[in-house]
Amino acid sequence: MRTAGCVILFFFMFLSVSSAYPGWMRQYKPCKQLVLYFHDIIYNGQNAANATAAIVAAPEGANLTILAGQFHFGNIAVFDDPITLDNNLHSPPVGRAQGMYIYDTKDTFTSWLGFTFVLNSTKHQGTINFIGADPIMVKSRDISVVGGTGDFFMHRGIATIMTDAFEGDVYFRLRVDVKFYECW
Amino acid sequence: MRTAGCVILFFFMFLSVSSAYPGWMRQYKPCKQLVLYFHDIIYNGQNAANATAAIVAAPEGANLTILAGQFHFGNIAVFDDPITLDNNLHSPPVGRAQGMYIYDTKDTFTSWLGFTFVLNSTKHQGTINFIGADPIMVKSRDISVVGGTGDFFMHRGIATIMTDAFEGDVYFRLRVDVKFYECW
Amino acid sequence: MRTAGCVILFFFMFLSVSSAYPGWMRQYKPCKQLVLYFHDIIYNGQNAANATAAIVAAPEGANLTILAGQFHFGNIAVFDDPITLDNNLHSPPVGRAQGMYIYDTKDTFTSWLGFTFVLNSTKHQGTINFIGADPIMVKSRDISVVGGTGDFFMHRGIATIMTDAFEGDVYFRLRVDVKFYECW
Repeated sequence: MRTAGCVILFFFMFLSVSSAYPGWMRQYKPCKQLVLYFHDIIYNGQNAANATAAIVAAPEGANLTILAGQFHFGNIAVFDDPITLDNNLHSPPVGRAQGMYIYDTKDTFTSWLGFTFVLNSTKHQGTINFIGADPIMVKSRDISVVGGTGDFFMHRGIATIMTDAFEGDVYFRLRVDVKFYECW
Repeated sequence: MRTAGCVILFFFMFLSVSSAYPGWMRQYKPCKQLVLYFHDIIYNGQNAANATAAIVAAPEGANLTILAGQFHFGNIAVFDDPITLDNNLHSPPVGRAQGMYIYDTKDTFTSWLGFTFVLNSTKHQGTINFIGADPIMVKSRDISVVGGTGDFFMHRGIATIMTDAFEGDVYFRLRVDVKFYECW
Repeated sequence: MRTAGCVILFFFMFLSVSSAYPGWMRQYKPCKQLVLYFHDIIYNGQNAANATAAIVAAPEGANLTILAGQFHFGNIAVFDDPITLDNNLHSPPVGRAQGMYIYDTKDTFTSWLGFTFVLNSTKHQGTINFIGADPIMVKSRDISVVGGTGDFFMHRGIATIMTDAFEGDVYFRLRVDVKFYECW
């Protein structure tokens, strides 16, 4: 009987370990998932009221109101973009995407991203931190979720990004599928 | 007797697992904690000798010696700031805070941080890497500790930041409460 | 006999836990390791065809074709550098190193790195994300591997960087020893 008890306790502990560590069964099933959209309107010299992003660095010979030639290589943009639950720019924002993107390739559109989702809604309070390479012309691309705070305390994961709309050089909208695989 | 031995071994293993994995009991108790201050003196065209930071990017129409209008939106500053154990700029530094901050909001003071604490003292040798959004006007705000080296090998956690002093647009001092929840 | 079975099951579970969690025995033995080289050719106004990096931000008084005085303090460079398996710039690239470096010290050469290895070869498909301080004059220095995607899904670790070659202010080559300690 005692032996049986030991086995049962054992089994219980086994279960508790596997549930406490989402990573243990690491079969790539997210422990938490969010789909969000963010909207970027780049300042072009004429849209100061609406713009949510500005070019702040450019390579030699380029300026700060027109994205540089050579696939914008060398431009750095700073942004504070509204985040929405659907693909409508005018939906009530649930937070802000804040940070920067860097165009870093001369022969295609690629950017390097460093930014944070600052979520502030009835459903989510906290921040999610991202970095990674974004090969813009690829339909679906992955970056790293390197940390979080608040509701996302210590979370890690992957974000899958898709360009949901692109209008000239002024507006783009990204769909971000945030998949956490480590949930504290 | 053997059964009892099994239970005891069990208990021992249970303990060893829970101590080896700080995350397992994830009750948000840090496995290591540091309180540090860093001091930022922004170059304004006249303080070259003392300045520890410089504006290196600005939006169209702004310059590199005065923080831009609209809550400094679009400024990027690069810094190499002394870290001290107390709030005195002239205390012996225990390391340097190196990296950048980006002012990224048009209607309040918010920055995006990417930086490293390079610690070099009798007590600590190693680096701690941070990224996150810093809503400066909020009293206490959290960013992510995304990794570390040396004494902080593979550590992860949260840093709570407070503005400890702010003098004009030239000097500010941050108190950083680094809380590691994953300690290797 | 049952007790013995319990102990055996126990032992089995113990083994499975320790193998599933690379961190558990945290003896600093990498679960995966890669040695790669990347090659950076900075634009100097005359090498547009070959350059893989450009200065895009500089402190007041400096320009974008010559690295700034004072140990380049305040320069930000954006890069898209070929990655090779050996130290030959002309070897077939296995991917690209994309991101930025920031010179952030006034009295020695130090940079802050934020970049991604985008690997695309028969052997590796995926990205590895890095941030950290790079005290260039130190022979061997460590930065953090904060995440990965594809073959490097959720990986974390340390990268040890060595300057393998340095030619004037135009070309440098880094050897990067990527050591993963958390392998999903």
